Amino acid sequence: MIIPALPALLVEPPVRAALVEDLGRAGDLTTDAIVPPTVRAEATLMARQAGIVAGLDAAATAFRLLDPSIEIAVERPDGTRLAPGDRIATIAGPARGMLTAERVALNFLGHLSGVASAAATLVEAVRGHKARICCTRKTMPGLRALQKYAVRVGGGVNHRFGLDDAVLIKDNHVAVAGGIRPAILAARQGVGHLVKIEVEVDTLAQLEEALAVGIDAVLLDNMTPEQLATAVRMIGGNAIAEASGRITPKTAPAIAASGVDLISAGWLTHSASVLDIGLDWRG
Amino acid sequence: MIIPALPALLVEPPVRAALVEDLGRAGDLTTDAIVPPTVRAEATLMARQAGIVAGLDAAATAFRLLDPSIEIAVERPDGTRLAPGDRIATIAGPARGMLTAERVALNFLGHLSGVASAAATLVEAVRGHKARICCTRKTMPGLRALQKYAVRVGGGVNHRFGLDDAVLIKDNHVAVAGGIRPAILAARQGVGHLVKIEVEVDTLAQLEEALAVGIDAVLLDNMTPEQLATAVRMIGGNAIAEASGRITPKTAPAIAASGVDLISAGWLTHSASVLDIGLDWRG
Amino acid sequence: MIIPALPALLVEPPVRAALVEDLGRAGDLTTDAIVPPTVRAEATLMARQAGIVAGLDAAATAFRLLDPSIEIAVERPDGTRLAPGDRIATIAGPARGMLTAERVALNFLGHLSGVASAAATLVEAVRGHKARICCTRKTMPGLRALQKYAVRVGGGVNHRFGLDDAVLIKDNHVAVAGGIRPAILAARQGVGHLVKIEVEVDTLAQLEEALAVGIDAVLLDNMTPEQLATAVRMIGGNAIAEASGRITPKTAPAIAASGVDLISAGWLTHSASVLDIGLDWRG
Amino acid sequence: MIIPALPALLVEPPVRAALVEDLGRAGDLTTDAIVPPTVRAEATLMARQAGIVAGLDAAATAFRLLDPSIEIAVERPDGTRLAPGDRIATIAGPARGMLTAERVALNFLGHLSGVASAAATLVEAVRGHKARICCTRKTMPGLRALQKYAVRVGGGVNHRFGLDDAVLIKDNHVAVAGGIRPAILAARQGVGHLVKIEVEVDTLAQLEEALAVGIDAVLLDNMTPEQLATAVRMIGGNAIAEASGRITPKTAPAIAASGVDLISAGWLTHSASVLDIGLDWRG
Amino acid sequence: MIIPALPALLVEPPVRAALVEDLGRAGDLTTDAIVPPTVRAEATLMARQAGIVAGLDAAATAFRLLDPSIEIAVERPDGTRLAPGDRIATIAGPARGMLTAERVALNFLGHLSGVASAAATLVEAVRGHKARICCTRKTMPGLRALQKYAVRVGGGVNHRFGLDDAVLIKDNHVAVAGGIRPAILAARQGVGHLVKIEVEVDTLAQLEEALAVGIDAVLLDNMTPEQLATAVRMIGGNAIAEASGRITPKTAPAIAASGVDLISAGWLTHSASVLDIGLDWRG
Amino acid sequence: MIIPALPALLVEPPVRAALVEDLGRAGDLTTDAIVPPTVRAEATLMARQAGIVAGLDAAATAFRLLDPSIEIAVERPDGTRLAPGDRIATIAGPARGMLTAERVALNFLGHLSGVASAAATLVEAVRGHKARICCTRKTMPGLRALQKYAVRVGGGVNHRFGLDDAVLIKDNHVAVAGGIRPAILAARQGVGHLVKIEVEVDTLAQLEEALAVGIDAVLLDNMTPEQLATAVRMIGGNAIAEASGRITPKTAPAIAASGVDLISAGWLTHSASVLDIGLDWRG
Repeated sequence: MIIPALPALLVEPPVRAALVEDLGRAGDLTTDAIVPPTVRAEATLMARQAGIVAGLDAAATAFRLLDPSIEIAVERPDGTRLAPGDRIATIAGPARGMLTAERVALNFLGHLSGVASAAATLVEAVRGHKARICCTRKTMPGLRALQKYAVRVGGGVNHRFGLDDAVLIKDNHVAVAGGIRPAILAARQGVGHLVKIEVEVDTLAQLEEALAVGIDAVLLDNMTPEQLATAVRMIGGNAIAEASGRITPKTAPAIAASGVDLISAGWLTHSASVLDIGLDWRG
Repeated sequence: MIIPALPALLVEPPVRAALVEDLGRAGDLTTDAIVPPTVRAEATLMARQAGIVAGLDAAATAFRLLDPSIEIAVERPDGTRLAPGDRIATIAGPARGMLTAERVALNFLGHLSGVASAAATLVEAVRGHKARICCTRKTMPGLRALQKYAVRVGGGVNHRFGLDDAVLIKDNHVAVAGGIRPAILAARQGVGHLVKIEVEVDTLAQLEEALAVGIDAVLLDNMTPEQLATAVRMIGGNAIAEASGRITPKTAPAIAASGVDLISAGWLTHSASVLDIGLDWRG
Repeated sequence: MIIPALPALLVEPPVRAALVEDLGRAGDLTTDAIVPPTVRAEATLMARQAGIVAGLDAAATAFRLLDPSIEIAVERPDGTRLAPGDRIATIAGPARGMLTAERVALNFLGHLSGVASAAATLVEAVRGHKARICCTRKTMPGLRALQKYAVRVGGGVNHRFGLDDAVLIKDNHVAVAGGIRPAILAARQGVGHLVKIEVEVDTLAQLEEALAVGIDAVLLDNMTPEQLATAVRMIGGNAIAEASGRITPKTAPAIAASGVDLISAGWLTHSASVLDIGLDWRG
Repeated sequence: MIIPALPALLVEPPVRAALVEDLGRAGDLTTDAIVPPTVRAEATLMARQAGIVAGLDAAATAFRLLDPSIEIAVERPDGTRLAPGDRIATIAGPARGMLTAERVALNFLGHLSGVASAAATLVEAVRGHKARICCTRKTMPGLRALQKYAVRVGGGVNHRFGLDDAVLIKDNHVAVAGGIRPAILAARQGVGHLVKIEVEVDTLAQLEEALAVGIDAVLLDNMTPEQLATAVRMIGGNAIAEASGRITPKTAPAIAASGVDLISAGWLTHSASVLDIGLDWRG
Repeated sequence: MIIPALPALLVEPPVRAALVEDLGRAGDLTTDAIVPPTVRAEATLMARQAGIVAGLDAAATAFRLLDPSIEIAVERPDGTRLAPGDRIATIAGPARGMLTAERVALNFLGHLSGVASAAATLVEAVRGHKARICCTRKTMPGLRALQKYAVRVGGGVNHRFGLDDAVLIKDNHVAVAGGIRPAILAARQGVGHLVKIEVEVDTLAQLEEALAVGIDAVLLDNMTPEQLATAVRMIGGNAIAEASGRITPKTAPAIAASGVDLISAGWLTHSASVLDIGLDWRG
Repeated sequence: MIIPALPALLVEPPVRAALVEDLGRAGDLTTDAIVPPTVRAEATLMARQAGIVAGLDAAATAFRLLDPSIEIAVERPDGTRLAPGDRIATIAGPARGMLTAERVALNFLGHLSGVASAAATLVEAVRGHKARICCTRKTMPGLRALQKYAVRVGGGVNHRFGLDDAVLIKDNHVAVAGGIRPAILAARQGVGHLVKIEVEVDTLAQLEEALAVGIDAVLLDNMTPEQLATAVRMIGGNAIAEASGRITPKTAPAIAASGVDLISAGWLTHSASVLDIGLDWRG
């Protein structure tokens, strides 16, 4: 499935900000001093590592914001599985602009491809099960929309985008409310008809309490595969079952085998390693 | 050594932006629906993992921007080496604001502590050598000043903050200029008296060419420890010697033993894992 | 029920922008020329019309941004039903700041109270029925979060805050997809587990198609009370039933009597009249 | 008369902000999930109600900011009197962008046309008299320039754009100054030679005091047509006479017959109903 | 006369921007490396040159934005005539913040005092005549409100703040309109009742044409004192007479003697020399 | 030598801000009222004074932001030495946009050309000596990048762009540190390997202390040519020698004759007079 691109209105501001962050007050001292404005260049975005590419719009935006005459021809669009040595895109134009925008373009592309690749690794690990891989709100400040997009590109799905698009009742909310039941009732009372409500439960007793009052989704936190399987049976399809806590490519298959609908992992966005993508210049 | 804090004028904007990103248009649906405005709480920032804490200013700013009456008492300031279970700070105030700001505060704190801890690991790996650990411009878009600060907190030093505060001549600049020597001469001609010039060299022949024309620093890219040792001898203290390429805690000691002044690693900022720090609420 | 206040982080930016819009480049020529800086004043926000007050935070923010020493004592907080002549709040401080901020403060307060009062009128009209009153995305540009808050203050509930927090399939989406069923299936496939899906239906045949595939909510557009009653029976509690189209205080009771869960009206936010609130100065 | 368009530099920022407000962090979930990127569409902006169209630049900007390849062909430009069923403009391009931008475009167009239509109704009511219809500073926060433009499109004229482009002495200024005369003198002393001075008077005695010291304009507040006629005689063409207070299409003719130069009404901008304009999609 | 202070809402943004411009990405390297955070200091703003002080609010804002605990005690407020050696204000607080903010504070204070002093020199030159000294729109980009304030502090008055607060018909407008008369009539037709109209005339014939149709003010451009005197007689008090072109302290007295109401000079804002004000630190 | 242009990303924001500052809320009242939208015009930027042109990018950006169809053909690019009457560029397009943008374009062009011309005057004064002319951080708030660019266009070189791209130890830092030597050592310890360190010295004794500990550059403040010559001998090429204090075209030759490397002058940016450039319209 092709993941719809983010609107340019959401991509351009962080890219512009990153370019300004890098240009500082005087611009690219090195390139300006060494490269005459008339020199043109051609370069290729190359995969140096296997993974999933994501963020080509952001990278292209970086080049075009720096110099609108730079042209980018994408060969392997977002979502393509890359092998080392694969050519991703060709970039041609004035050498100055290409050199100046290169690092910012690669910073977006490498990071977002890293997030997509991490998601894809988990997606692969649970293949054959119905569980889908999901992100969290543990994102890099300022990059949430882009990171969540990269998770989708990697085959995952998105959890809440913020505090305002769904209810997620956590242990501290439960403590203040005096129990799972009053917390859910208060939430249901407080929000609109298009807002889903999820509650975090640490025990099967809490799960029972949540199911009794009715709930859209339950976050089963740090449970063993056995506990999860029991939970899934208790839920019986009446709520979405999300497992979280210490999810790795190794632990994911057993968790998925429990029958949960979703497996969420914060490290997809807070600790993903960059995917090594380089820009090779042609003589 | 205590690392000077970043000015609030540089810390507040990204924290404010991250809060707005998380609040969206409607704010914290869950907390608003469940937690009465009069409830007060106390919570503790706790290390769940060993590492170096960094980013407490950003975390405190998140709480205070959400509700100025939230109070933060720091016990282990930025730069402290944490053991699992160490108490970092105590936070007290209206429960609503604390719950609403928690994730943004932890996103900054966990990430920046992760960067500082990564830097500290490399610093530790080269202890006994003169080499200092250094970051690059491979940073998360929008977070450069904060990430570079975290590298300093971890005991590292900073490379360029952007394209405009020093010259770094790379292979593509050399190709355009037609050699190391004309590239350096063009740079020297083009920049002010307070701008240092560094050149990336891949071979000892290039190094010789650079030294012949005079240079402030050389980036010795992807050389073996033996090559590095030769390079250091050739340099003879007449330029700063920086090694880069595939730096890990394992490879760093041999590289440092070559006598280089600096070892730089992009993964400190582009692929650092979060440091696990939690906010424990008191009954 | 007390409606939770919007976070100051969401209220302050539009108020600050409105003050700057009013101050222009030279500030308040009139007040600066006539009122010495030492003059202090006291004034009272008074209801000149019956309605529901909303927006006191925005009004207070206008005064405080202009001069932090201005003090506002609220007697009738947001949500209070006002009779003409009711005192809402007392404001005291330097006369200059009070005079300069007055219009912006009243512009927010009058408009948001107008929205809340309009919502309350519809809420009142359907009293005794289960239907709740709901807003739409037909809002004043830049004021959505504030207007939706005002709807809540007036006793209503909120529909989507934007294009990204729920799915609402409209006729044009259905046309592109080639039917209600494929549209719903595509939507279900494309969004995360915490996103609800609503579909607009114009006929009972479309409703049947939607119910067959399963749906969270249906928007019954421009149906008669009789058609609505039939629709509600067909839905049988398996989806939320929302009625829209030509809703007025006169038509609302019959529509509510059909048994729908929600009645939505765009005019609450796009055509609400201001509520007349004045600032009376004391000699 | 064709009203000059607002500069794009003033129109684009509020439109961009409104689109970002609507897109949130994830964009248009519905359209992205259902409508393939290759689908093209054509649609027509249609008047569903009689009135004056205003805001086509803002509407076109919304579509073009979302997707620059969307084309808008205007048939009835701003200022045209619309009958129900009149075609205003045709819009063609990628269906995704058109669906995503539709609501924001209509929010601007409907509101601004509503303001223009309200102004035109009053203009019509006073036809045959010299009085011109005028707005106030009672505007929607953030939309003042656009609303004032819509008033002009509707045949009205603009009062002050802010606190800094003219002096308007109100009762509270008079109270502080200790009288009409000292207030006017202080204002005249305090402002530049291109700033006009208007004073609000509630009685004919105050008017006399103002005329004695000399004034550019007088705001005759809440006077009867008879009082206004007397005032106009007293003024004798030596100042601009502006009537305000409870202006409606019914009361306006008698007020205009008094001979005043201007009739101002806050509800044109604070309480105008939307003009119903729809976007009809072609199969 | 004490000139009213600009609202903080207008002063703070340019000061904040200037601090961020100076701090860059890493802050004050020098002070952070050398000055421990506990060191406190006291310093005095001293006049090194005679002139008029202006901009103390901006300077104080620079210090307070950097560190809210810095205290500023003003001894000679804006508008005071300074002799060399005069103490203007005392500043005390943490040395770090004071050192870091010093340059930005002085950049505002020196420049705005320079503008005020230039204005005062012209004001002094025309003492005894009724002519007032006036600025233009030839201002430093981004600093118009502050510069115009400084002109007022220096005893001058302000011309237009922008293109939108008055009409100034120049030669090119006249050329397009086909004459002075049609230009004035078009302007009168096109703008609101609170907008004054001024026309630039180069000859007495043009002046006659303007007076015949009626005008609020005339800009008599580059006329000799004799021509100006004739013009003033022709005007006979029926319009404001403004002289401009090559105004210096030497030429101003003769020009003022012609009886004009205003003398405007662009160099007050585009070419004023800084007033030398230093910050002396106490041992 | 052709000075590399500033990236558009750095030029556009201040130009856009200046246009918005000038347009205010209602745009160009005069032009809108008088000039029909169909009128086209052609005009020429003409030098009225000898000097160096700088800022054509900013001027062109002003016209294009106002109306993208305005075309600018540059005949004498930035850095050209102008004689009075020289044609700099031709501008053609819709008259409205050209008239509206004219003042902002000229404000940038005149000021930046003034800065470049001032720099060129000093450069000329020291011709034949090795000394280069240098600016300071005494810049107009918000315009630093543009002003520093203009200094380069005028043949000068740039000092620090801000507090964060080099260390400059001043007398107050020395006082806190307890001497030149500890201040330099603290700075060297605190900053990265690409940051140069300069120290301000007032006496030859201080210079000796600085040279003993080693330093990249010394700022010789307010020394006589004789003292400077002695200083240069003492330095012996081991540091960059910068002279500052009361630099004028008259004093500069003798100072340059002392053998210093750099001569810096704050007035280039804080007190440069505008270069008189006009826009001549063709009948």
